[in-house]
Amino acid sequence: MIPTIEDVKAAARRIDGIVVRTPLLRCDSLDEAASARVFVKAECLQRGGAFKMRGATNAILGLAPDVRARGVIAFSSGNHAIAVSAAANLFGISATIVMPSDAPRIKLEITRANGANVVAYDRVRESREEIGARLSAETGASLIKPFDDPFVIAGQGTLGLEIGEEISPDVVLVPASGGGLVSGVALALPNAAIFAVEPEGHDDIARSLAAGSIQRNAPGIRSICDGLLSDTMGEIPFAIARARFAGAVVVSDASVRRAMKFAFRNLKIVLEPSGAASLAALLEGGLDIKGKTVALVASGGNVDADAFAAAIA
Amino acid sequence: MIPTIEDVKAAARRIDGIVVRTPLLRCDSLDEAASARVFVKAECLQRGGAFKMRGATNAILGLAPDVRARGVIAFSSGNHAIAVSAAANLFGISATIVMPSDAPRIKLEITRANGANVVAYDRVRESREEIGARLSAETGASLIKPFDDPFVIAGQGTLGLEIGEEISPDVVLVPASGGGLVSGVALALPNAAIFAVEPEGHDDIARSLAAGSIQRNAPGIRSICDGLLSDTMGEIPFAIARARFAGAVVVSDASVRRAMKFAFRNLKIVLEPSGAASLAALLEGGLDIKGKTVALVASGGNVDADAFAAAIA
Repeated sequence: MIPTIEDVKAAARRIDGIVVRTPLLRCDSLDEAASARVFVKAECLQRGGAFKMRGATNAILGLAPDVRARGVIAFSSGNHAIAVSAAANLFGISATIVMPSDAPRIKLEITRANGANVVAYDRVRESREEIGARLSAETGASLIKPFDDPFVIAGQGTLGLEIGEEISPDVVLVPASGGGLVSGVALALPNAAIFAVEPEGHDDIARSLAAGSIQRNAPGIRSICDGLLSDTMGEIPFAIARARFAGAVVVSDASVRRAMKFAFRNLKIVLEPSGAASLAALLEGGLDIKGKTVALVASGGNVDADAFAAAIA
Repeated sequence: MIPTIEDVKAAARRIDGIVVRTPLLRCDSLDEAASARVFVKAECLQRGGAFKMRGATNAILGLAPDVRARGVIAFSSGNHAIAVSAAANLFGISATIVMPSDAPRIKLEITRANGANVVAYDRVRESREEIGARLSAETGASLIKPFDDPFVIAGQGTLGLEIGEEISPDVVLVPASGGGLVSGVALALPNAAIFAVEPEGHDDIARSLAAGSIQRNAPGIRSICDGLLSDTMGEIPFAIARARFAGAVVVSDASVRRAMKFAFRNLKIVLEPSGAASLAALLEGGLDIKGKTVALVASGGNVDADAFAAAIA
């Protein structure tokens, strides 16, 4: 099922009071750098430090009460793990989270602090999908997928609704990998040009749009954008992408670090690498946005202190 | 003249559209740490990176047009400098700023980038008040005092009005030195217990309240809270303090660094040492706030990268 803007509106009603309405930040030096009116949707200020709380909460509230009571399971590189564990904790149900053993420490620690049972796996040798499906079959817990789920996509899209209630952006830049966030935002903002922003070497969305079919990334490619390393985008996000995306933009690790530093210095917010990808795309200057109203989704801020210190040095 | 809440309301109307209405942030781990409902007024997200833009804008707009056209002058350790230079830049008038030679680089750089003429002085051997008065007499520019001015106090107080429009705090914690911000907030929130937070060794507000007269700090005492190093509080702030403050709290440099780290990790905002003093006071646990609604003013985020990296390590 492909969700619609009505599903996004239903999600907004469902998660109201649980999820934070994050601010749209302005910054004179950002407007000057971009020669545009730029609004930063500071989703690092979301509960759990990232947008993922929106989709996780909507998906868990979408389960029938008896199903929900058997708990939830998720596989995630980090922010979806934090979100599902935080939402499960709020609703008093159990959560089992399958996380790569090389996930940022802060993401592992917060997930454990939320009371989840964390199962570590090897990102290169094991399949998190298989581990998740097996644990779900064993326990009766519901698998909350990170992006290829209509409730998750509709939940992430609530962020786009909030943008649209305050401004009418011409262009929206969204960090993307599985595509749950960017496709939800596309549903919520039907009149904006939506661009997915991906890490260099991990440009499957750009290639999928060009090919007209879902493309995969080569295994083992790394980026500092630890939240944007899905092998491939989801089928539902891809269907929305074909209909709605204006394009996909690629950013280098170096440009992401510069964006983190810019956000530290000028916006006074903490962005993790994945969360700074959209700002990196803007600052690199390759987009035709002069004079336009641009919304940047700064999607999260869960970053280890040493990685942050290196970026702002 | 001692300003009143009506002056604060007039200031709010005057600076509307120039100054940002900053968000009140929540954080589950902060509520848990404090056993209270805590709201963080994230004034680091203000234009210029600190609350000072409020008072500077109100003071400059309070000048008669012909007086304003002759420009402004200010002496400041940093954030007032940034604010006066930014406001002067917006209004198209000249600004001369007298700054200590050991001010944080980021504050000197932003002030210069705002087009101000920066005059450096030696914090220990020279009097910034004398330099400011002399330059003002020479040029006809109006001196915008950092805190002992009713327009500045009323402007800073607009931050308190915004808090009061969203919540009814029992307790409000405000970083303080000259006392412009904390006294303005006290005017705006007449039903809250107002606490000034000062750096260790620089506890003149606590001593002034106890003595019933304005006390000075010993010269040359340092703290990482570079924005909270006034020799003494202002006469107008002291008059308000005697009538309205619940007390003053002292924080160590070590506790301020821990608060900066907490804000990085849990709130995802960048706080400079002075801006984190109120959070430090809360986290130190010495205040009786259990079960109460507490507003923390996180007053600014202009901090050099190396100082920030050291705090979050």
